[in-house]
Amino acid sequence: MIPPDTSPTRTDPAPLHITVRTAVGGGRTLLSAFDAALLEAGVANFNLIVLSSVIPPGTVLTRDTTTVAGTHGDRLYCVESVAYADHPGEVVSAGLGWVFDPVLGGLFVEHTGGSEASVDEQIRLSLADMAHSRGIDYGEVSTAIVTAHCTTTPVCALAIAAYSVAGWTTP
Amino acid sequence: MIPPDTSPTRTDPAPLHITVRTAVGGGRTLLSAFDAALLEAGVANFNLIVLSSVIPPGTVLTRDTTTVAGTHGDRLYCVESVAYADHPGEVVSAGLGWVFDPVLGGLFVEHTGGSEASVDEQIRLSLADMAHSRGIDYGEVSTAIVTAHCTTTPVCALAIAAYSVAGWTTP
Amino acid sequence: MIPPDTSPTRTDPAPLHITVRTAVGGGRTLLSAFDAALLEAGVANFNLIVLSSVIPPGTVLTRDTTTVAGTHGDRLYCVESVAYADHPGEVVSAGLGWVFDPVLGGLFVEHTGGSEASVDEQIRLSLADMAHSRGIDYGEVSTAIVTAHCTTTPVCALAIAAYSVAGWTTP
Repeated sequence: MIPPDTSPTRTDPAPLHITVRTAVGGGRTLLSAFDAALLEAGVANFNLIVLSSVIPPGTVLTRDTTTVAGTHGDRLYCVESVAYADHPGEVVSAGLGWVFDPVLGGLFVEHTGGSEASVDEQIRLSLADMAHSRGIDYGEVSTAIVTAHCTTTPVCALAIAAYSVAGWTTP
Repeated sequence: MIPPDTSPTRTDPAPLHITVRTAVGGGRTLLSAFDAALLEAGVANFNLIVLSSVIPPGTVLTRDTTTVAGTHGDRLYCVESVAYADHPGEVVSAGLGWVFDPVLGGLFVEHTGGSEASVDEQIRLSLADMAHSRGIDYGEVSTAIVTAHCTTTPVCALAIAAYSVAGWTTP
Repeated sequence: MIPPDTSPTRTDPAPLHITVRTAVGGGRTLLSAFDAALLEAGVANFNLIVLSSVIPPGTVLTRDTTTVAGTHGDRLYCVESVAYADHPGEVVSAGLGWVFDPVLGGLFVEHTGGSEASVDEQIRLSLADMAHSRGIDYGEVSTAIVTAHCTTTPVCALAIAAYSVAGWTTP
């Protein structure tokens, strides 16, 4: 008797769960400002691997602020938008925008700028171009934009989409 | 009785098939210009993970323009050279160069510049240095170079080598 | 009879072995200078995938100069700090710093600058901020810093932490 095939298949995978997060962090270096933003976003203790920047069909996509589950040092596949301000008075914004259809999948875009309005405008221009060139109407645009204001030491504005965690036993 | 070992082994894998592609794209933002070039190159609907930039022994290496097979949002390991022009009249070139021996493997290099001649010269200098420092004569240099010319909105010149697609069920 | 489960588990993996390496390389292009440094560091024949930059608990962490074992073209997950000097007289330093507790895991930081003292200072500021924001005393800071001095052609200063090699049969 042939046992049932219970192995995961490419045609019927568990849905990917992507969480979108924004945060601001500060530190005495650009790097520790970035780390503080990652900590605030719940992803500081992972080895980030940056993707550009497509959403698979069937993905469950939510906004979240809780810490991503996983072991310290696991790899985390993500899409990120990062901007720094390190002169007192300087203001920067970073944002992700996306369109998503459950059947067709979707697209992320990453933009940075001097204001949230500028980032929002760039996001909508990019996504409109990208939908047009594919001949697909993905519907409504969503955004997650955050602003950091430097008063003394460096600050980091971070918008990040956390895709999937991979441990080191499955390299 | 010991069953036959049918697991894949490191000494006898299926050969990697790398396809080299060039494209030019335009858009209202640098990002949508990049996306348009990716679409033209047949790799727009993947999550790119950028490698630097070695060719395994036994690889099948071809030039291609067809769309890479895979599910929307899969990860695509690649080597890429990208250049942007966003001032009217500005011209940029981007290129990959490579040497390859079926037994020893090979090397990719990525260069950008203001003309195809400049990119070609940089490619040949880099590969000559890299072959020399390894004490290996890899033979003939191949190149894939493309030029983008900005007239109004941003354009992107892209040369990309697509390695391997990975779905999200095998993180 | 149910056969014993011999598959690797997340709770009892083989420990990750991270090796930290520094090197200087020169070439006629920035890229071949980088490659020469990679060769000196024993990691030139891998496809590097850059991580940011966490050390898993239980990791074995050593300094090394021997060539990393693996097949030409395999992927190598790594943390890297890279700086270039391409004007005669120009001097650059690149370094990694880290803290590590065998039970809690640890953190890498990457910095570059005009002198080893400057890189060392940035490393200590970043790690102090990052430990403070986590509320953890990781203890002593370790560093690996290297300096490259340009006299004629480009040079590269490289500090790199090699995590794990992955072949192409397990994408």
